[in-house]
Amino acid sequence: MSKVTPRIPAGFMELLPGDQIQFNKMLEIIGGVYERFGFTPLDTPAMEHLEVLLAKSGGETDKQVYRIVKKGKSNNEYCLHTDLTIPLARYVAMNQNDLTFPFKRYQMQKVWRGERPQRGRFREFYQCDIDVVGTSNPIVDAEIPSVIYSVFKELGFDRFTIRINNRKVLNGFLASLNLLEQSKDVLSAIDKLEKLGKETVESELQACNIPPDKIDKIFQFVAIKGATEEIISQLEALGIEDEVFVQGLSNLSLVARYMEKLGIPTSNYKIDLSIARGLDYYTGTVYETQLDDYPQIGSVCSGGRYDDLAGYYTDTELPGVGISIGLTRLFYQFKAAGLIPTGPSTPADAIVIPNDENCIDWAIEVTSALRQSGINTDLYLEQNTFKKKFKYAVNLKVPFVVIIGEDAVLSQNLILKDMESGIQEAVSVDAAICQILG
Amino acid sequence: MSKVTPRIPAGFMELLPGDQIQFNKMLEIIGGVYERFGFTPLDTPAMEHLEVLLAKSGGETDKQVYRIVKKGKSNNEYCLHTDLTIPLARYVAMNQNDLTFPFKRYQMQKVWRGERPQRGRFREFYQCDIDVVGTSNPIVDAEIPSVIYSVFKELGFDRFTIRINNRKVLNGFLASLNLLEQSKDVLSAIDKLEKLGKETVESELQACNIPPDKIDKIFQFVAIKGATEEIISQLEALGIEDEVFVQGLSNLSLVARYMEKLGIPTSNYKIDLSIARGLDYYTGTVYETQLDDYPQIGSVCSGGRYDDLAGYYTDTELPGVGISIGLTRLFYQFKAAGLIPTGPSTPADAIVIPNDENCIDWAIEVTSALRQSGINTDLYLEQNTFKKKFKYAVNLKVPFVVIIGEDAVLSQNLILKDMESGIQEAVSVDAAICQILG
Repeated sequence: MSKVTPRIPAGFMELLPGDQIQFNKMLEIIGGVYERFGFTPLDTPAMEHLEVLLAKSGGETDKQVYRIVKKGKSNNEYCLHTDLTIPLARYVAMNQNDLTFPFKRYQMQKVWRGERPQRGRFREFYQCDIDVVGTSNPIVDAEIPSVIYSVFKELGFDRFTIRINNRKVLNGFLASLNLLEQSKDVLSAIDKLEKLGKETVESELQACNIPPDKIDKIFQFVAIKGATEEIISQLEALGIEDEVFVQGLSNLSLVARYMEKLGIPTSNYKIDLSIARGLDYYTGTVYETQLDDYPQIGSVCSGGRYDDLAGYYTDTELPGVGISIGLTRLFYQFKAAGLIPTGPSTPADAIVIPNDENCIDWAIEVTSALRQSGINTDLYLEQNTFKKKFKYAVNLKVPFVVIIGEDAVLSQNLILKDMESGIQEAVSVDAAICQILG
Repeated sequence: MSKVTPRIPAGFMELLPGDQIQFNKMLEIIGGVYERFGFTPLDTPAMEHLEVLLAKSGGETDKQVYRIVKKGKSNNEYCLHTDLTIPLARYVAMNQNDLTFPFKRYQMQKVWRGERPQRGRFREFYQCDIDVVGTSNPIVDAEIPSVIYSVFKELGFDRFTIRINNRKVLNGFLASLNLLEQSKDVLSAIDKLEKLGKETVESELQACNIPPDKIDKIFQFVAIKGATEEIISQLEALGIEDEVFVQGLSNLSLVARYMEKLGIPTSNYKIDLSIARGLDYYTGTVYETQLDDYPQIGSVCSGGRYDDLAGYYTDTELPGVGISIGLTRLFYQFKAAGLIPTGPSTPADAIVIPNDENCIDWAIEVTSALRQSGINTDLYLEQNTFKKKFKYAVNLKVPFVVIIGEDAVLSQNLILKDMESGIQEAVSVDAAICQILG
């Protein structure tokens, strides 16, 4: 039979078992933290009506959207979602009478974008999102980074920085310079400061016809650094009376204060006035998160506050705040940075190996006992040399091997081998269970 | 602004939070059992190359496949997978040098089929699959129903029946009647016996030109009932010497014996000679599972053994055995049968409610303490009347409410209300944690 070459589409990530287990662990940790903070799970269809998806989006999204067609049909009424925010907006608008507000939901699903595949950029990737919808309370803006802090702590990081800013502070400042009309261009330029450097951003601002003295003031502004209190004082000292600025500064100060109360160490967050976040719809607090020792990874978690989530679908005004972790890209980068351990290629804590055919019945009994104790247990049943049987366990990097020999059956003992220490000893089933459970 | 009507495509399931939590619990139970039996997780891209997906499938699949196109492009090289078996075959063929065999994988993902939507039939649904690839060992065929047994036990069922049969027994029997050439038609007819009744199946067999005496023999054969040993004896008593039959009977008998050894109660399984399973590629043991009290649901878990998983992609012969649970349809039917409890609409075990603004700081401290104890905790921060605050907790059906009043702040006490019993009392934070953790 002529064969079809087995392959996957370019720009899609698929993992071998060892990495898949690590990936799933990260998903589980993130989901666990989200639930610990009271976010409820949501799973929306992979497909949306094209009209629903494109209600808000501009031309760039339109080009990236994967449309769905069936054989011999030309209409493509449906498409794959490109993020989890539009599905959330649609869901909340659709079900607003059945939901309790503030609605705190988390969603960890694949999204698809038909971009040109590049190193580290994927066309299918997991997003892990949380949003609190239906509240303008700024203390909620402080709880969000508290979630981010717990996620990255539990993922095993100590040295990371959650950077916060407030779009009202930026817009108010620009208003005070009479630059409100150019604010989109200015914010977009500022956002690139860290990546592209001062000179490039300066050229970009000049190209927007911003006068040199105002460019200087912008650079002075985003250069305001220091501890939270210092930045707040310096911002106050600017004496800007613009109402939006005053409100933004008051919010930023309150959010920073509550972040501390929520137990985020001051070493793990800072106000950074150069963060603007490209997305149009952020209107208040914005967040970015960097791993201090891996700046090349860029932001690992970002988001912000918006005034109106679902304006395209409902008249109900739904302010809220949310963040997103792009897990597929993050996993890829963690892997490249050597941060993903080479762990087992099996979820089994133990593999039971009967020495020969006569030992199978007792091997089954032992396997069942282990499983009933909650131990993930694999049972090796192939007829092979012992060397080959043992190689199966070695290849899978399982923590424990349980060998059932003729003698084990008679003596009700088995050989338990701790694969890490290499120590093996004859023990009872109960003793084996205790040792494996640690 | 003119609004786009928020809606989802027909034939897609989307749940409100309470149901979503129940759905996720089922997913978690199933995945947990799969891991307990040593199956390793796999997640494959939603898209496959059309050529890869259609290598095996016939015209029916071709019509159902959702193809992917981008704006202004006409080619549809990619499509959404319609099951998890083709992706597994492609994955194993692609990665055979990096995998350890027997390869035990589980996969719980959405699949998509562009069928006409009907009540209880979905175009997007979760499949929860396990397969053991690269083994012909019939004891493995007995371990698979042991997984099924654990899954449905842990989903809360006692009364269900795993029905097993062996395609070799059926084919060998048909060979003994010189009906091997019509076997596909005959098996397809037999498979419908329970659903359509004897008369319809008889007409179907007549239409296939099966002579009346042989039709009688077929009906006598599938009518063989009884306990495992009785059925095996009756099959042996038929004296059929066909080699395939003899091998199938020996396998069936061995599988049944090992199912008992693996601890499956005899009330939860039986040999049923009328089960054939439509799919072409099953060659040995086949499974179906019914809930005894809900026969209208049909088979809740089915599968079987195959000789060659990935013949379309590789010369390596890969025999194996697997099963699938269609969770979306199952959830829909459980819901219709009143089997899905109306539980909380939040994963939170407790919601902390500060009585007024002055209590927020202490409410934050209590919330953090609860979360650090591993308690999923929501913090209500909206400024509202107490009645409205409390209604939030009632609507979400949270098990515990923690009320932080002025006095609580002074006395370091809080009010813990058990929402099920209605009992509330003033306790310390530590006492509250103990009570919530149960």
